[in-house]
Amino acid sequence: MKNSFFSRFTPKEPKFFPLLKQLSDVLSDSAAVLVESLQHDLPAERADYYKRIKDLERKGDKLTHLILDELSTTFITPFDREDISSLASCMDDVIDGINSCAKRITIYNPRPISESGKELSRLIQEEAAYISKAMDELETFRKNPAPLRQYCSKLHDIENQADDVYEFFITRLFEEEKDCIELIKIKEIMHELEKTTDAAEHVGKLLKNLIIKYA
Amino acid sequence: MKNSFFSRFTPKEPKFFPLLKQLSDVLSDSAAVLVESLQHDLPAERADYYKRIKDLERKGDKLTHLILDELSTTFITPFDREDISSLASCMDDVIDGINSCAKRITIYNPRPISESGKELSRLIQEEAAYISKAMDELETFRKNPAPLRQYCSKLHDIENQADDVYEFFITRLFEEEKDCIELIKIKEIMHELEKTTDAAEHVGKLLKNLIIKYA
Amino acid sequence: MKNSFFSRFTPKEPKFFPLLKQLSDVLSDSAAVLVESLQHDLPAERADYYKRIKDLERKGDKLTHLILDELSTTFITPFDREDISSLASCMDDVIDGINSCAKRITIYNPRPISESGKELSRLIQEEAAYISKAMDELETFRKNPAPLRQYCSKLHDIENQADDVYEFFITRLFEEEKDCIELIKIKEIMHELEKTTDAAEHVGKLLKNLIIKYA
Repeated sequence: MKNSFFSRFTPKEPKFFPLLKQLSDVLSDSAAVLVESLQHDLPAERADYYKRIKDLERKGDKLTHLILDELSTTFITPFDREDISSLASCMDDVIDGINSCAKRITIYNPRPISESGKELSRLIQEEAAYISKAMDELETFRKNPAPLRQYCSKLHDIENQADDVYEFFITRLFEEEKDCIELIKIKEIMHELEKTTDAAEHVGKLLKNLIIKYA
Repeated sequence: MKNSFFSRFTPKEPKFFPLLKQLSDVLSDSAAVLVESLQHDLPAERADYYKRIKDLERKGDKLTHLILDELSTTFITPFDREDISSLASCMDDVIDGINSCAKRITIYNPRPISESGKELSRLIQEEAAYISKAMDELETFRKNPAPLRQYCSKLHDIENQADDVYEFFITRLFEEEKDCIELIKIKEIMHELEKTTDAAEHVGKLLKNLIIKYA
Repeated sequence: MKNSFFSRFTPKEPKFFPLLKQLSDVLSDSAAVLVESLQHDLPAERADYYKRIKDLERKGDKLTHLILDELSTTFITPFDREDISSLASCMDDVIDGINSCAKRITIYNPRPISESGKELSRLIQEEAAYISKAMDELETFRKNPAPLRQYCSKLHDIENQADDVYEFFITRLFEEEKDCIELIKIKEIMHELEKTTDAAEHVGKLLKNLIIKYA
């Protein structure tokens, strides 16, 4: 039994920071593929990009489970277990969100994605970049929380921008789009993009809590 | 490091009950604004009410984070940390639900909200009132759990009423509404209202668990 | 106060394994009723099946709360509290998913459910069967994790099958279905079925974590 009384005192300290950084890289990669995918509108192209994003989603899933498994069997960790597992799970949620966007674009096959949709994908990519920078601060933010704090506020600002893009677009969509089935497709894809920007900001909220707890 | 070995013994006891009560007041306020908003159907009026509800949502968000932050850095609390954080988070979820309803009404701009929709908003307001009363019992329910228990069963009953209103309305909507885009708008707004009554009942479930654990 | 210092040492060990097994039986029952219900298309029949599933959902809800209540007041448990509560909550989520499917079929009243929809319901029933077998392993998997490990991989495979069925069907639905309101009904019911297969796989993920932690 790994978690028996004695094993709890066996020194065992996996490198959680490098693993979290790796996960943020997978997130950045899938965000980049999403942005690129919206430039291509043929069903076959959309299916290819979805496949690439799905592969990254599985890679992120494996990495997240590796982190959670290590945590559940490790006694000493740099932070509370929950803090690391939440960080991993929430980054995984962003990757899942990107996958949901690509999936819906492929199976709904809507008209070419609007400029607003492309803008949301770029905002997701920006958020991924700040999350990746944030992972580099985990070793050091206790002494110098300023950079991490700055990335969190960036994530917050980007999410507000995304809300405005989304709300403005959907208002116009309901005023102008008369093709009901096309409206269903676009509305749900845009909603999925917007939810993904929320998921990325949620990572920022977790990071802000780390600063409060540890810095 | 706030949570270092020594700091854990620094006496520090923020007033969690008043903070939870404040949060329940924000919930009651947004429920009241929602009920009033459904009396007004002009796009500009809807946008104004959404703005008011969004401001309350942000206020609730700040308050919730204040509670969670205090918890994460406090050693002694009246209950287990999780019990207080769940209570705060779930009240915040109800406020978020109200915000989602107002947001959709504004950006979808449907026909005047039905009598059933107004009824759901009144049920949300009733639930908010019972949650607010419940917050006044947190200091005392260990000795006298009867009032808190009563509020929980009220929340449960109201949620069942809301289910019936929702299911009856949606059944008729799909039988009668032929305008597909209008159906999409109404269906989703009604669903959001119904989900918000669920979120409020969830607060009741947490309170019931407190009685089981502590009374 | 049940959880006072002294009460924590009162021996008290409810039988969690039999309770979890009972919950998995409720899950298997509702899956069976769902599969059967899809053979019947009259509104009155659909309403009857929904009622039967709703009753099972309430039974599962009571059982889940009983488990969570016992946990919150029990000191010694076979696993960490969280592990048992997550297992119970996730099985309850699958039952809730089945209830959501039946509810939507009743209140939307779509055309007869497609062969793909019936296939998804059968996959849910298969998953319920593996979850039920898994509950029989909880006492013994520490010594012999092989069977439990096998059920987990089965749950994983079934979920992947469900994804393919869903994606293939929705792609065709958007290509072929011209009746917008019917498309809304079918799309959402199929999505609910697919989400329920996910919820069942999530139970498998929890079980895999138990193997990692304890076997």
